[in-house]
Amino acid sequence: MVNRFDPASAPSALSAADRRLLDRRRAVLGDIYPLFYDKPVHVVRGSGARLWDAEGNEYLDAYNNVPAVGHANPRVAEAVRRQLTQVNTHTRYLNESVVAYAERFLATHPAGLDRVVFTNSGSEANDLAVSIAQWRTGAQGVVVTRNAYHGTTRLLSGLSPENGPRMPLHPWVRVVDAPDTFRHGPRAGTVFAESVRAAAEDLRRHGLGFAALLVDTILSTDGIFPGEPGLLAEAFRATREEGGLVVADEVQPGLGRLGGTMWGFQRHSDGIDMATCGKPLAGGLPIGTLVLPEELSDGYAQEHRYFNTFGGNPASIAAATAVLDEIEDRNLLDNARRTGAQLLGRLTEIAAASPITADVRGAGLFIGVEMAATDGADGGRWARRMVGALRDRRVLISAVGHAGQVLKIRPPLVFDADDADEFTDVYAEVLAEVQNQGDTP
Amino acid sequence: MVNRFDPASAPSALSAADRRLLDRRRAVLGDIYPLFYDKPVHVVRGSGARLWDAEGNEYLDAYNNVPAVGHANPRVAEAVRRQLTQVNTHTRYLNESVVAYAERFLATHPAGLDRVVFTNSGSEANDLAVSIAQWRTGAQGVVVTRNAYHGTTRLLSGLSPENGPRMPLHPWVRVVDAPDTFRHGPRAGTVFAESVRAAAEDLRRHGLGFAALLVDTILSTDGIFPGEPGLLAEAFRATREEGGLVVADEVQPGLGRLGGTMWGFQRHSDGIDMATCGKPLAGGLPIGTLVLPEELSDGYAQEHRYFNTFGGNPASIAAATAVLDEIEDRNLLDNARRTGAQLLGRLTEIAAASPITADVRGAGLFIGVEMAATDGADGGRWARRMVGALRDRRVLISAVGHAGQVLKIRPPLVFDADDADEFTDVYAEVLAEVQNQGDTP
Repeated sequence: MVNRFDPASAPSALSAADRRLLDRRRAVLGDIYPLFYDKPVHVVRGSGARLWDAEGNEYLDAYNNVPAVGHANPRVAEAVRRQLTQVNTHTRYLNESVVAYAERFLATHPAGLDRVVFTNSGSEANDLAVSIAQWRTGAQGVVVTRNAYHGTTRLLSGLSPENGPRMPLHPWVRVVDAPDTFRHGPRAGTVFAESVRAAAEDLRRHGLGFAALLVDTILSTDGIFPGEPGLLAEAFRATREEGGLVVADEVQPGLGRLGGTMWGFQRHSDGIDMATCGKPLAGGLPIGTLVLPEELSDGYAQEHRYFNTFGGNPASIAAATAVLDEIEDRNLLDNARRTGAQLLGRLTEIAAASPITADVRGAGLFIGVEMAATDGADGGRWARRMVGALRDRRVLISAVGHAGQVLKIRPPLVFDADDADEFTDVYAEVLAEVQNQGDTP
Repeated sequence: MVNRFDPASAPSALSAADRRLLDRRRAVLGDIYPLFYDKPVHVVRGSGARLWDAEGNEYLDAYNNVPAVGHANPRVAEAVRRQLTQVNTHTRYLNESVVAYAERFLATHPAGLDRVVFTNSGSEANDLAVSIAQWRTGAQGVVVTRNAYHGTTRLLSGLSPENGPRMPLHPWVRVVDAPDTFRHGPRAGTVFAESVRAAAEDLRRHGLGFAALLVDTILSTDGIFPGEPGLLAEAFRATREEGGLVVADEVQPGLGRLGGTMWGFQRHSDGIDMATCGKPLAGGLPIGTLVLPEELSDGYAQEHRYFNTFGGNPASIAAATAVLDEIEDRNLLDNARRTGAQLLGRLTEIAAASPITADVRGAGLFIGVEMAATDGADGGRWARRMVGALRDRRVLISAVGHAGQVLKIRPPLVFDADDADEFTDVYAEVLAEVQNQGDTP
């Protein structure tokens, strides 16, 4: 985690009350719960793309995708309240709202993806998707990208090289370079497809067979590579030709974030077999989804038992329904496209005069700014300083990539033109400051 | 699933509106989503231990543990609404409520279990617990009971023999008989401990080592075996002597259900290493917990990365806090003890005159009634008929056990003396009817 708070570092930057809370937190949650930023943010209130801390300071949130329709969205709150005052039980009773939401949700996917399974997280959804792919193909092998992250379960830890070398990959996992448009240029999609074919061949050579390509359709943790529309189409096709299934991990790119299309894979090709989502679906209430063809879903169900107690609970479904309502009524896909283009344009202008910026890329409201390795510091060090300096100006972002060298700008979908102006104004000032300070860590 | 609805069976028992909903449901959710009962229940409203269907019929809920503090609990609804109108973000910002809840929650556990990790389900919690046990011991082997169920992830599917032979167990899993007090009598605890020792030895003999005993502390899916307090103490001790960790799966028995103690393991011994929970914690909002010693939690965190986006989200925490408030303010542990004793006493009386009832056992509001194998039908067949006949009288229960032969009576914790009277009155009538009809399937 690039911008991890170091508990040994100067907590004196925090208020006395926050220091006490930090101590209490550590005593019950412990080291497994790192905080963001050198100076952690104590969040008490939110609205739209704004957050406020315990001292009343306002922050511009250019990072969080879970509150896709804005922090503390009143429509989400009211929908959940109403449902909780009626009933909130599981899917082994008949219930209208989960069916109605499933119908609407599936209608946002291409024809053929006609069944949905509800879980409580993207992790639970990816875990099931991999199991179904392995069952369907009778093969074990799964291909992921070099810095991929797909979730927290044991199955997915072994499919998530981003976790680092201490968390081993499964023997049946093969890792390939992401389609890095910055380094590979226009051949990135072809190189990626060739890598998938080679990995499939290697898996077969080891007697493991090829079950699936599991891929985040904007390569978030690899460094954010939207590419031109179609970038991933060749790899999807190669996967299927090699006998594998394509699983599109839409946890980060999905639900309209990329602008224009609802799902990241749709920018490239409809030729996928399963799509998963989670984070942005329900205003922070836990939910995950796996969308797949009837043939896969019902076939799997004939030989396996799957029940998820909370999956599809009416409260999470009420929240998810309100989120879809907001996306439609407020034209948030269109906003993602327009505001994203505004941000991308301005950040590209700013980068042109910046010796420490190597590349600016994005689709909709998901933008990556690759910091340059210079004589003085590598890209990761510049990125850490940018993230910290922006936080000091109360603008929240993070960083990703194999060296943490790519600024990750992924605001709520309600981020509007004024927010974008404010963001780029502060960004330009902070970039100038960081550059001028030079390499003084 | 004992009381699974067969879509090929007479849906004419349903209203025209429910038949339409059933068709719509099947078209989007499919076979992976079975319904309870020969005649599924279309739930639209709940309150306390009551549910109502779309036609206004009232049901007595003697099955659901997720709504521990009652269906549609207004305190839970209001707590969630309030939180959702403030902010609902993740644990990488400082937040007071998750710390305060963690403190209260840990205080319900014995000393030494002083860290909590929040997940979105019991499955995610068990998945992490097994990973931590294997990391800590450097061994792979895990022992579970013969009809155990521990969750939905791939890791846990392979630890859940209840799923049936088509879902294979991991090679490093050993299965032992549950401490079946009905069949093994007073030696059940000793026999169980000896089986755990033998399994540990076998795991070592195979070079796998012994990492953990993972056990539901009332053996819910094995057939509900509360036993005398202390029943599991010997197996806990044996596990530790053999170098393994004891993981208490409290998803079903936990949070005061067994009366008197908050957690099922406490009836037997505090000598455990980790405890997990999920279902009853937050009024149906997804949540899971793993409680463990600082040494395990912080040690694991030093070598592994774990982050759960929704785990510990303030909305689920607000619901969980309201649930704890209700349990304390309404003395629901005491209610579980008293009402449970009333139910158990009356069901035992009824059983004395019943040739198709073999055993009645329970702790607090978790009661199992083992149906007898008779000349005409096995226990599973009697149990299925009891569950269906009770549903026709609008009383909801289910059945468990290796042959589905044990009636599972596990009502919300707010189930009171009047509910218990109503339940046992209907139960006595239904039992007499089913007996009198004889074996006419």
